Amino acid sequence: MNNYTNIALAGFGNIGGYFYKIINKNIKNIYLKTGNYPLIKYIAVKNINKKRKIKIPKKKYVKNPMSLVFKDDVDIIVELIGGAEGMAKKLVFEALKNKKHVITANKALISKYGDKLASIAEKNNVNLEYEASVAGGVPIIRSIKEGLIANKINKIYGILNGTTNYILSSMENKNKSFNDILNKAKQLGFAETNPESDLNGSDSADKLRILSSLAFNKFISKNKILTEGIQSINLTDIMYAKNLGYKIKLLSISEIKRNKLMERVHPCLISKNSYIAKIDGVLNAVVVDGLPIGKSVLQGEGAGPGPTSSALISDLCSILKNEINYPFGVSVKSRKKISSFNTLDHLCSSYLRIEVKDLPGVLSSITKIFAKNKISIKNLIQKPDKVKKIASIIIITHENSEKNFQNLLSHLNKNRYVLKNPTFIRIESV
Amino acid sequence: MNNYTNIALAGFGNIGGYFYKIINKNIKNIYLKTGNYPLIKYIAVKNINKKRKIKIPKKKYVKNPMSLVFKDDVDIIVELIGGAEGMAKKLVFEALKNKKHVITANKALISKYGDKLASIAEKNNVNLEYEASVAGGVPIIRSIKEGLIANKINKIYGILNGTTNYILSSMENKNKSFNDILNKAKQLGFAETNPESDLNGSDSADKLRILSSLAFNKFISKNKILTEGIQSINLTDIMYAKNLGYKIKLLSISEIKRNKLMERVHPCLISKNSYIAKIDGVLNAVVVDGLPIGKSVLQGEGAGPGPTSSALISDLCSILKNEINYPFGVSVKSRKKISSFNTLDHLCSSYLRIEVKDLPGVLSSITKIFAKNKISIKNLIQKPDKVKKIASIIIITHENSEKNFQNLLSHLNKNRYVLKNPTFIRIESV
Repeated sequence: MNNYTNIALAGFGNIGGYFYKIINKNIKNIYLKTGNYPLIKYIAVKNINKKRKIKIPKKKYVKNPMSLVFKDDVDIIVELIGGAEGMAKKLVFEALKNKKHVITANKALISKYGDKLASIAEKNNVNLEYEASVAGGVPIIRSIKEGLIANKINKIYGILNGTTNYILSSMENKNKSFNDILNKAKQLGFAETNPESDLNGSDSADKLRILSSLAFNKFISKNKILTEGIQSINLTDIMYAKNLGYKIKLLSISEIKRNKLMERVHPCLISKNSYIAKIDGVLNAVVVDGLPIGKSVLQGEGAGPGPTSSALISDLCSILKNEINYPFGVSVKSRKKISSFNTLDHLCSSYLRIEVKDLPGVLSSITKIFAKNKISIKNLIQKPDKVKKIASIIIITHENSEKNFQNLLSHLNKNRYVLKNPTFIRIESV
Repeated sequence: MNNYTNIALAGFGNIGGYFYKIINKNIKNIYLKTGNYPLIKYIAVKNINKKRKIKIPKKKYVKNPMSLVFKDDVDIIVELIGGAEGMAKKLVFEALKNKKHVITANKALISKYGDKLASIAEKNNVNLEYEASVAGGVPIIRSIKEGLIANKINKIYGILNGTTNYILSSMENKNKSFNDILNKAKQLGFAETNPESDLNGSDSADKLRILSSLAFNKFISKNKILTEGIQSINLTDIMYAKNLGYKIKLLSISEIKRNKLMERVHPCLISKNSYIAKIDGVLNAVVVDGLPIGKSVLQGEGAGPGPTSSALISDLCSILKNEINYPFGVSVKSRKKISSFNTLDHLCSSYLRIEVKDLPGVLSSITKIFAKNKISIKNLIQKPDKVKKIASIIIITHENSEKNFQNLLSHLNKNRYVLKNPTFIRIESV
């Protein structure tokens, strides 16, 4: 009886190299836990002759990842190329069509094509595993599918992006500007050279789409979800928030409201005593609120070779144990479509920072706009800068609808005293 | 094809009743996720004629739990009787011998007979599942076996007992005595009428034995492990700890030190800024420290019908999916024996409260004992009660060995000024 399962790696950067080493180091342990030895048979790399730290037998290298799909001695393809389109997409689609199991860390791909890929995997009775695509050091996908399987989940939320969490918590702790901390994060490897998808919230939104399709047994949202990043948040906001008893965090929140789905990613003011407020630095955390379990929390490092490899190997072990599961927990035909909750009806209180000319009559003009939009003010701080003849007006509002807030912002933008787009941050009770 | 799997419940109290309701409410969802309908066919109860809130068809009742073992139309037995001996033990052993899958919430049984039971289950190719035996709302057992499967775990620790955590955090938050809070906890149902096994740490020790056998792929410890409860902690200790920047928590800690295993359950002073310090009330939390993942944390409610049912059903779904796993993650023959680390060699700093007669020369006599035992003092507070002519001496020591601390305590006990056994709490950096 052959107890070897053959694996092909596509992509051999930081993560791939680490994964290769960990697999080889733990081969016996993995056999003891699964009954199968994982054997990395092929590695697809762009440049075979590139000098590498790890010594790999030449015969393992292939140049074209697509060739892996047709090899009889490949059982599992691990896709570490990345990106929702191009080679990664082509490889994963073709691999599943050719009855290869697939393991991927590619959140963009799963978020965009997960439903189609799941159909093919299910039809061909192979696994499509993607634990590493969301919060590597937090086994959240397997927990929803296994440990929390019994629960009717009402809400799933948390911090899904380590880069932005590092930036926000470091701005507060080190009292430094957004740009200073961003540069520091790039030096430390906590932010990529082009960190746009982290900063603008789209990385978090991809991950949230995946989590909410699992949590609510539904297809992945195709609609544009409310996504705002952290680029407009400055140190002033963080310090005002702190003085008012809040922290600013980029949260990803998915919940069922009146049988409809609301998914959103945006900065939030949250009570500094809340659990989520204490998740600092590059950590990720996910809170699952369900019945009968109540609140269950998972926390760990979000990214990096270690946590990502841990997630990839948990996927691998699931395949080695012959546990063929529906990629999204239930079969494609049992997954639901849920219509979207109209975000404009969402209620919250909020924080605004409005930069204005420091002239008589400003405050009356600004507060009149609030009154017109039926938004009542809970707390107002005016801070003039006499030299520049400008002032910052910080306002905490009472609860109101997103619709009214959007109208308010549009009216504020048109006001002749207002110098630039106000900063608007929703207050979330978590 | 018959897609029904027949279940028998043994024990029908709070948990059993809730489990029954949740199963019936979620039967379709469970089918969608597992491909099998769970059918509760029999319920073993002591008194068939007892009035119950839930209406159960009479034909489901049986009087003798042991009869379930021999029924051909029983696939899974859910044991909710409790206790390491007696009926629970007999039922689970016989069920596995008769090739029935077993699900149990019984930590005392698993902690004592888990190794033997796992052998039988493995031989007979049936499941022995016990997620609910440790921290119901925290899917820690399945996470070690699935989501964190790739990791070499070095240390696993946390708060495994909700009753004691509720008592300690309420004493601090409400500034009330141990007995006041214990009575309140009994009223609220957070403490049992006889809470001894919670208070003296043995409940936590049972759970820790189970976790460390899973985390380190070893047999369950048979040795007596260092177990101390919270009975000797009073409000004074909590308040002094608070002033010094600490919280007192009953921690369960298992770690590999120099290739040997150290398991211990005792109250600890931990930094009030640490993650674990923030787990208050009846919550449980488990920290897994492993490679390559780093620190992964799971947190949730420890007990109660909801969290326990969530855990029981995750076990059930695993069986319904035909995932027959080794009960402890690896086969019996692959599990190791690890020798115990000599607890007397453990190093830590510590907190002591010594009640003495308030007489001249006391402090010199007490500090001499510290010097003789080579334990150096970092911090000392003396608080006299002039009326009663007694004084409390609070001492924080530098790091030293358990052996020296034990000698110190024995010498202190013999000292003529010392009025009662000093309170000794280890300081743990977590």
